[in-house]
Amino acid sequence: MSAATPVFSHRHLLGIEGLSALELTALLDLANEAVDLSRQVEKKRSTLRGRTQINLFFEASTRTQSSFEIAGKRLGADVMNMAVAASSIKKGETLIDTAATLNAMHPDIIVVRHNQAGAVHLLARKVGCSVVNAGDGAHEHPTQALLDALTIRRNKGRIEGLVVVICGDILHSRVARSNILALSALGAQVRVCGPSTLLPAGIERMGVTVFRDMTLALRDADIVMMLRLQRERMNGGFVPSTREYFRFFGLDEAKLKLAKPDALVMHPGPMNRGVEIDTLVADGAQSLIQEQVEMGVAVRMAVLEALARHLPNSSPQ
Amino acid sequence: MSAATPVFSHRHLLGIEGLSALELTALLDLANEAVDLSRQVEKKRSTLRGRTQINLFFEASTRTQSSFEIAGKRLGADVMNMAVAASSIKKGETLIDTAATLNAMHPDIIVVRHNQAGAVHLLARKVGCSVVNAGDGAHEHPTQALLDALTIRRNKGRIEGLVVVICGDILHSRVARSNILALSALGAQVRVCGPSTLLPAGIERMGVTVFRDMTLALRDADIVMMLRLQRERMNGGFVPSTREYFRFFGLDEAKLKLAKPDALVMHPGPMNRGVEIDTLVADGAQSLIQEQVEMGVAVRMAVLEALARHLPNSSPQ
Amino acid sequence: MSAATPVFSHRHLLGIEGLSALELTALLDLANEAVDLSRQVEKKRSTLRGRTQINLFFEASTRTQSSFEIAGKRLGADVMNMAVAASSIKKGETLIDTAATLNAMHPDIIVVRHNQAGAVHLLARKVGCSVVNAGDGAHEHPTQALLDALTIRRNKGRIEGLVVVICGDILHSRVARSNILALSALGAQVRVCGPSTLLPAGIERMGVTVFRDMTLALRDADIVMMLRLQRERMNGGFVPSTREYFRFFGLDEAKLKLAKPDALVMHPGPMNRGVEIDTLVADGAQSLIQEQVEMGVAVRMAVLEALARHLPNSSPQ
Repeated sequence: MSAATPVFSHRHLLGIEGLSALELTALLDLANEAVDLSRQVEKKRSTLRGRTQINLFFEASTRTQSSFEIAGKRLGADVMNMAVAASSIKKGETLIDTAATLNAMHPDIIVVRHNQAGAVHLLARKVGCSVVNAGDGAHEHPTQALLDALTIRRNKGRIEGLVVVICGDILHSRVARSNILALSALGAQVRVCGPSTLLPAGIERMGVTVFRDMTLALRDADIVMMLRLQRERMNGGFVPSTREYFRFFGLDEAKLKLAKPDALVMHPGPMNRGVEIDTLVADGAQSLIQEQVEMGVAVRMAVLEALARHLPNSSPQ
Repeated sequence: MSAATPVFSHRHLLGIEGLSALELTALLDLANEAVDLSRQVEKKRSTLRGRTQINLFFEASTRTQSSFEIAGKRLGADVMNMAVAASSIKKGETLIDTAATLNAMHPDIIVVRHNQAGAVHLLARKVGCSVVNAGDGAHEHPTQALLDALTIRRNKGRIEGLVVVICGDILHSRVARSNILALSALGAQVRVCGPSTLLPAGIERMGVTVFRDMTLALRDADIVMMLRLQRERMNGGFVPSTREYFRFFGLDEAKLKLAKPDALVMHPGPMNRGVEIDTLVADGAQSLIQEQVEMGVAVRMAVLEALARHLPNSSPQ
Repeated sequence: MSAATPVFSHRHLLGIEGLSALELTALLDLANEAVDLSRQVEKKRSTLRGRTQINLFFEASTRTQSSFEIAGKRLGADVMNMAVAASSIKKGETLIDTAATLNAMHPDIIVVRHNQAGAVHLLARKVGCSVVNAGDGAHEHPTQALLDALTIRRNKGRIEGLVVVICGDILHSRVARSNILALSALGAQVRVCGPSTLLPAGIERMGVTVFRDMTLALRDADIVMMLRLQRERMNGGFVPSTREYFRFFGLDEAKLKLAKPDALVMHPGPMNRGVEIDTLVADGAQSLIQEQVEMGVAVRMAVLEALARHLPNSSPQ
């Protein structure tokens, strides 16, 4: 990967918010180089040799944790997984104690997923090492947005000027939020679409166009990004029937025809087939869903490498 | 290990079925060389350096997973464990999605255990890397058969012509199935013995002699291989009382005397002491049970090395 | 670390009991050198390259297991974690079978935590490799005592002659037991303090002074070591109300003023804030609690390195 003067020079990656188009592009460029490494037989670098990466997951996530684990190991880091049951973390101070304990073991990078927005920021203020947000509540999931942007850029040659429709459960989606921020910063025209009950109030202020009718939202779309219907986050709120949901907001071949002929389909996974997306579309020629997973490893390698430039550890703020 | 022209040249190891005596012998020879490595202080090779091995276990198995993990690490691979709760894998399509997701992360080898026969074959068709079957339902468990064969060969000097009695719950046992295939291919005379309710219909067609009376089965036996009574697989079917079972089909010192004086005792573990095997026999001078575990690591190293010859990754079929 | 003639020359570290001041000091000296390594960017040594370390935890412990995992990886070992549910280990013979199985895989070091005193000794007799006790019931937790001693020595310049007060649930605490043994051997004057119901009968015979009144125990104290109130171990016995407990045996700023002005505060973690220790004290200027965690990694590296000198594996006793 590039050894030129780094454009991205933050200690943490807590979110897409606040990152410039130049910084995002620098990370995508670095990730683009990392794609090739994973396609080789010998996939190992020594970039992070002797560094300790801790994957601290307060929410289970096989997919994201695996991606970070593989990324760290391919860069030569010592990777340690820590799955923490949410039940043992009832008080904010316990999260802080966990952070302080881990910090004392001198990790270089902590990758954190937590079910509460803001928990990752809190943790980052308590440790001397780099922190990567691997998803915090309904707030941000920056590496997902980066991998989506990389996937789009590699397939469309650009992001600027593209019409991207993000469709589904916008309200509970950190993926939607981070993608809106990243794609807007990179010059895409972002639309969001979903039932009123799953659209957060004031979402227009993020610079997106809001649709409640998917047939209108898809017109002229270059990218159709479907979201997972997150029933597990709908505590006591409105829970749509999956049959009704699929009829109006599920992506099937008929609806996909309303987008541009060369429109591409994305989904952050894991998919609820037949709920937000039809199997024929998910596995069809326009689908980028598997490529997104591949780009995930590359983007995480790029982020780990970019953050590693700021080591040695400084002391906590 | 040997760098000669490989006899075993498959991309996957999904079962013993279809493998020739020559191929089995080649794997045993390779494993035999691997035994020494684990007995040294410095146990590391770089055969799989830069390769990614994923242990994907849909059924918990401390013993087998550990064996594959140690084997991969000793060969220098980056090993990632993924324990998947059976509950999250209710539909066949979810297994396929899991396979597709993992495949996109460019692993080189996926080691899979699944509670359904055929699941490993299905997965192998969906990925571009090598797949090793670490046990699928009541179907096959090929590395267990290989480690048993290696243990026998090292202790008896040969397999051809030996009388091997596999005793117990043949019906639910992938270990029995793979062993029958491997030992028959290598020229042993295989007998199976168990209560009628635990003998699959038509087992004679696999070329074995069937006994329902253990005292007859043991006559002239060189090897007595006891199986674990798998109560967890007996869904609604016949479940024997352990006391009755031990009386008729448990191996104790009295029954063992019916075999040849130099007969050797095996068990794939974990043992139900006092159910299928008496403690005195399990820990006695004729027992090879601990050596089987040691051979397990060696056989898995050999399999991983043999499959690695076929990398770089080809694309999925 | 030092290559001089080793003073500590045991195959296992099962407890502090029986170790001389000279041996303890040798381990502390080795650990002291290891502290620096973890503070560097490149934290890797090859001391244990090609060695296999198994962390066998029958009780969950994120903190201790992580510390051993990081220590082993920084020394270059292949580390394998095995979490064993207590439910699957109901019989003593099953522990022995587990030990025999692991032993056959030729590990070099097994780190064991078990909820029963003596289980670790039993296991050590059944394997050919080194065993480290990471806590067995209410018996011993030797690496905790070593890390506490190292923390004290680095902050006070010595251990001999210091007044150390260990306060709280002495009855259920392996930490207390190992610390009494280590600190007494190194010349400290050890006091224990707690409610009568949480003081083991005959504790005076360990050479400590017993207090039931914390205000008296703290007088002239150099070190105040608070213990975690282990409600999970109080099966059917006396369980104090946390409010009453904190009033009489919790360390707050007022009580801390009764100790020497330069007294230092320790806690093995995880803390019950507001139960045995007040947050202001835990996070205050006199607290060494985070430094204890850092010393934990260093001490475990030292122990692993010291034991590694005795490899190659000898056969089981």
